[in-house]
Amino acid sequence: MYDGAVQDLIDELGHLPGIGPKSAQRIAFHILATDATDVQRLAEAITTVKERVRFCDTCGNVAESEQCRICADTRRLTDVLCVVEEPKDVVAIERTREYRGRYHVLGGAIDPMNGVGPDDLRIRQLLTRLGDGAIEEVIIATDPNIEGEATATYLTRMLVPMGVGVSRLASGLPVGGDLEYADEVTLGRAFEGRRRVT
Amino acid sequence: MYDGAVQDLIDELGHLPGIGPKSAQRIAFHILATDATDVQRLAEAITTVKERVRFCDTCGNVAESEQCRICADTRRLTDVLCVVEEPKDVVAIERTREYRGRYHVLGGAIDPMNGVGPDDLRIRQLLTRLGDGAIEEVIIATDPNIEGEATATYLTRMLVPMGVGVSRLASGLPVGGDLEYADEVTLGRAFEGRRRVT
Repeated sequence: MYDGAVQDLIDELGHLPGIGPKSAQRIAFHILATDATDVQRLAEAITTVKERVRFCDTCGNVAESEQCRICADTRRLTDVLCVVEEPKDVVAIERTREYRGRYHVLGGAIDPMNGVGPDDLRIRQLLTRLGDGAIEEVIIATDPNIEGEATATYLTRMLVPMGVGVSRLASGLPVGGDLEYADEVTLGRAFEGRRRVT
Repeated sequence: MYDGAVQDLIDELGHLPGIGPKSAQRIAFHILATDATDVQRLAEAITTVKERVRFCDTCGNVAESEQCRICADTRRLTDVLCVVEEPKDVVAIERTREYRGRYHVLGGAIDPMNGVGPDDLRIRQLLTRLGDGAIEEVIIATDPNIEGEATATYLTRMLVPMGVGVSRLASGLPVGGDLEYADEVTLGRAFEGRRRVT
């Protein structure tokens, strides 16, 4: 145990995800050894993010005003919507520069084991957005794991009767990977989704 | 890239030791999702530690006043001094409840590759503390790695002529470990330091 303030900081840091007691201690001593202005910047970044950042009224992405940068961008396509679990997925897709439409962030995936049902996600808001018929395609880009697949299946069942086109991201071998090390499910999906080249 | 404040926080978190871009992002979203009062507590713990915590004038350990808790404790032995690299080593030794003396924190180890020489450590202050002859034994408890060993050798050479007893922590097999998995240097030390039991 350390003296008051150091131990308090270690305790607070230990509540952050992925920070165990050892890392918390290491970070606390780093902070102690760091220039006061740099430390102040970190403390301010933490408070500022809470004060200033909210979620986009339209899509649920992080935003600093009512609408996020993407929803506010009039150059983005308005007839295609990509449904993701979290704001970080938006960033990942934006990095590809392949997609020019808008997003809808669910805020998680259906996960009954952890008590997350469809009502806990922004599914109602998704249906509202689809209401005016302007959106022609919904690309479901949930995580390729059990919860993501369950969410995708749930959404597909709900969207198909509405007459909107629904698509899923392709499953297959990761680019730059090694066929030998692909798990059997991924390899199975790669066969299933094979494309003729001649 | 995220909008302003989120990206600022991710950047600031990314400067902390052991926090890569993915962890920084994860922590930032955790902070976004956390209750404002909890977040405020974290930000305050960071600023408080810089405002309130200093280093003990005597031993160099972390302290909230001129002297640390251990130097201020009159029940601690005054004739034995344990020399460690960092305040976290003090905490580790205190946890054993084996040691009742005081400490001297060097603030690092001799590491020429990273430009840390004897003058960058609190060695001068150590010699001053030994000046009045009250200390009979100095236990060198630097890390059992190259830098720690170099520091220990340097200190030993300097302390022996002063007539003070110098000792080192024992090297050997870690308790609860597996002999098979011990590296050869540790196992060699364990042989070298073997004790007769009959």
